[in-house]
Amino acid sequence: MSKSINELKLKEACVQAAREVIAERGVEAWSMRDVARKLEISHQAPYRHFPNRDHLLAEIVKRCFIDFAAFLDEKSKVEPQDELRAMGQAYMTYASTKPLEYRLMFGTPWPDPAVHPEVIKYAVHAFDLLRQHLIQVHGTSPEHKKKAELEAMFIWSSLHGMATIEQSNVMNHLVLSNGVQDEARAFSMKMIGLALSSHCEN
Amino acid sequence: MSKSINELKLKEACVQAAREVIAERGVEAWSMRDVARKLEISHQAPYRHFPNRDHLLAEIVKRCFIDFAAFLDEKSKVEPQDELRAMGQAYMTYASTKPLEYRLMFGTPWPDPAVHPEVIKYAVHAFDLLRQHLIQVHGTSPEHKKKAELEAMFIWSSLHGMATIEQSNVMNHLVLSNGVQDEARAFSMKMIGLALSSHCEN
Repeated sequence: MSKSINELKLKEACVQAAREVIAERGVEAWSMRDVARKLEISHQAPYRHFPNRDHLLAEIVKRCFIDFAAFLDEKSKVEPQDELRAMGQAYMTYASTKPLEYRLMFGTPWPDPAVHPEVIKYAVHAFDLLRQHLIQVHGTSPEHKKKAELEAMFIWSSLHGMATIEQSNVMNHLVLSNGVQDEARAFSMKMIGLALSSHCEN
Repeated sequence: MSKSINELKLKEACVQAAREVIAERGVEAWSMRDVARKLEISHQAPYRHFPNRDHLLAEIVKRCFIDFAAFLDEKSKVEPQDELRAMGQAYMTYASTKPLEYRLMFGTPWPDPAVHPEVIKYAVHAFDLLRQHLIQVHGTSPEHKKKAELEAMFIWSSLHGMATIEQSNVMNHLVLSNGVQDEARAFSMKMIGLALSSHCEN
């Protein structure tokens, strides 16, 4: 009994240590050995819980998606007409306050989906928060669903582009007018809103 | 004389070999040693032209930006009212036909800008194709310039988001309705256009 509790603790400790190692060494340059070294355990010990690095990475990415979806869901519980805007703001807040998690979810290749279907499951769940909201707005017929999905892809890709550009610091180098860097995010969200209103009218 | 021609050839050969090595091993996992090995030259030889890996990478990224800007400029030489759309289409075409170059420019940390100012210079030049077009449309007053730059950031970030999502293949996993994946790019570009028209009217 005590042993199995310790094993559970070891699994959690591996996940936590891997996140720290990734934060220190970057998403692509870490190894199971680094994790063992950080925990001061034998190099073989992490393999009792994760067959290889990809399985440990998949566990981390899965948890990022669960955390991310919970954050979006929590922050967007407002009046329906404001829900989309609130969800967009929550998305951008998550990206800027948790850049490493964001990069693990959206900026690096996922572990093989065939081997790690759970990662995909939780990723699709996060996307569905947006898709289902838009389906509620437009309707559930195949035509409406398609419209909702095209809008969801537009919204998501625009937010994702802004989030990654903010994280890259490239705006520092573009010699932008005063205020542009600070206002770019809000401006883009306003433009997304204008596009959606205009599209709805057509 | 012959020696200096050979040295020039060696520099070019290093750049070419590094691009191949990056294509094979990924953007973050290559070394100067790999380049030397591919060229079957001594491990020290590439250092005659590039003090370290970052300098060689900077040369490659700089060339990507030059190539990219030339491509955008060439493809968008159409009627002024269609120029923005043509530039957007050229951007997306470049991203999907040259994914490695695109990743080197926009998907990986740049070499230290303080050490490699040329990379920044050519990156800003590429952004200026868009910025200057919008300044021509709106006017050159500080207020108009700011508006142009905010629009440029919105356009660029939306295209960048779509380009990276297309490259990631994540759409394959979202169980989208028929046609959504194929139409997402054109739809997003239409939405960007709607946002810009709507913003102009305000």
